[in-house]
Amino acid sequence: MKIQTILLKNRPKGKPSTSDFELINEDIDESLKNGQILLETTFISVDPYLRGRMRDEKSYVPPFELNKPVSSGIIAKVVDSKNDKFSIDDYVSGRLDWKTHQISNGEGLLKVDAQKAPLSAYLGILGMTGLTAYCGLTQIGKPKAGETLVVSGAAGAVGSVVGQIGKILGLTVIGIAGSDEKIDLLKSKFGFDQGINYNTTDDMKTALSIAAPNGVDIYFDNVGGPISEAILFHINTFARIINCGAISVYNDTELPKSISVQPFLIKNSALMQGFIVSNYEDTFPEAMKQLSEWLAKEKLTYSETIVNGFENTPKAFINLFDGKNKGKMVVEV
Amino acid sequence: MKIQTILLKNRPKGKPSTSDFELINEDIDESLKNGQILLETTFISVDPYLRGRMRDEKSYVPPFELNKPVSSGIIAKVVDSKNDKFSIDDYVSGRLDWKTHQISNGEGLLKVDAQKAPLSAYLGILGMTGLTAYCGLTQIGKPKAGETLVVSGAAGAVGSVVGQIGKILGLTVIGIAGSDEKIDLLKSKFGFDQGINYNTTDDMKTALSIAAPNGVDIYFDNVGGPISEAILFHINTFARIINCGAISVYNDTELPKSISVQPFLIKNSALMQGFIVSNYEDTFPEAMKQLSEWLAKEKLTYSETIVNGFENTPKAFINLFDGKNKGKMVVEV
Repeated sequence: MKIQTILLKNRPKGKPSTSDFELINEDIDESLKNGQILLETTFISVDPYLRGRMRDEKSYVPPFELNKPVSSGIIAKVVDSKNDKFSIDDYVSGRLDWKTHQISNGEGLLKVDAQKAPLSAYLGILGMTGLTAYCGLTQIGKPKAGETLVVSGAAGAVGSVVGQIGKILGLTVIGIAGSDEKIDLLKSKFGFDQGINYNTTDDMKTALSIAAPNGVDIYFDNVGGPISEAILFHINTFARIINCGAISVYNDTELPKSISVQPFLIKNSALMQGFIVSNYEDTFPEAMKQLSEWLAKEKLTYSETIVNGFENTPKAFINLFDGKNKGKMVVEV
Repeated sequence: MKIQTILLKNRPKGKPSTSDFELINEDIDESLKNGQILLETTFISVDPYLRGRMRDEKSYVPPFELNKPVSSGIIAKVVDSKNDKFSIDDYVSGRLDWKTHQISNGEGLLKVDAQKAPLSAYLGILGMTGLTAYCGLTQIGKPKAGETLVVSGAAGAVGSVVGQIGKILGLTVIGIAGSDEKIDLLKSKFGFDQGINYNTTDDMKTALSIAAPNGVDIYFDNVGGPISEAILFHINTFARIINCGAISVYNDTELPKSISVQPFLIKNSALMQGFIVSNYEDTFPEAMKQLSEWLAKEKLTYSETIVNGFENTPKAFINLFDGKNKGKMVVEV
């Protein structure tokens, strides 16, 4: 059968461009061996962390290879099966290649229930996004009711869930985002107490002292860079900083510089912890239970930006770095 | 009686100078009320962290007041007593003023045994220095035998103890210090496996890759600044960085800049924790027991730089920032 595949063509320098990717047409033999299933891609997740895998350097996951398919979280429909665990018309979630169709032995795939939640939610609030928000906030942030939480990248997929969980747990929640429209959304849709638009705020330090008069106990950092510097001036004793992402510097070709964090950490006995959700698998069952429950009770809501068309996957990925998404960015194939 | 006192005269700008301090002669009434003791200062501890208290800003301890005595860890002899808990000729340790004599109600003072160890040791290896090394390394570093520990400020008071405890616990220990003489001392006296002289090493990144071929699991950071940047390139997954001091930037009048730590922490799931020994009081009994035992068994040794004369206390403090001390710097009155 004829399929389409997206390859990594060049390692991006700075901000990725569509020319770093190549869409090719392939023919695959769709006849299955025992244990195999044929998958048709339904939704593709594009995420900032994929930028790191496009570099040729040691990290927590190996880099993507040049001229090989990019992979990410994908929801796919089982269209043929020689595997007892999967039937035709099942939907599965897992790390799969950017291909319209592919054959799998089922390893690492989870079945997802299209009746319980929209399929794309399993890439977002009931997938890595929700797990990242829940595990990072609870396991590193260790929130106590009454504390103040600041979230950067607050209107993004993870940030908007972090803020909502913060509110459920009794925190004062301040979100930082890059447009007035996003700030409105934080307050009206996601229940944040306050929002700061970093693009229209000259002096983040002063803005934070007004927004967080009692200081910052937990900072869930999705962006790194200059925004995160301003927070350091406001952290309280025993503050916890969750380093979940640093999207503001992922495209830097030189090593980014910031004010030294050490003096701030020392004088506040504060913690910074690099966070990768895959280290918190022990917490996943609890997290999924809580997230599903909160979602069912409508205590949690989510946004997603759905881009149509397999061929637009690279563009959707690139748009993450311009903040063009509200909430989780997914491609519907 | 006539006594001498050292006051903070100016808040230092940049590196402190002797003119930031003033030595005055005072007359005090040495007659005691019930519960009071008269103390004669024997040894004064000078420590880098005192620089922070000379700034007029919020920190974990309130700033020193201008035209008031500086205070630090002091060993003093009880020369008169109307307090049942203290007898004449007892020695005590505690946070006291930079005065040749002073009256105290005994609060916060611990008796120390001049028979068990030299008195100055209670300001060092059996005092805050040893507790800092032990609590920081064990409680944040959580060392496992076979891991690699890097210590900056390694020939300093805390650093030299950290390295020795590291060796006792089965770690590979690499020390960073600022002279060949100190590097020799690290290896010959304190049993470090390797040493790097940052003053004669052009490329710290390469030097570290040679010294720590298996990467760095624990970094006990006493200095901050550029030396600490180089370590980031070598940290292993789940590395622990203990931010104990940042002497290299304490005198900076502008906020120091460094490469952003966030991307390094994220990709290595690494931890940075600002460390202040006073938050670890629960561990003090265990620490004192271990340190005394190791000292008695000669598994631990220490250096101290003793400066003579009360009036030289400010100079001794200032010399810390030029690395003129080997091990703990104390003033003998």
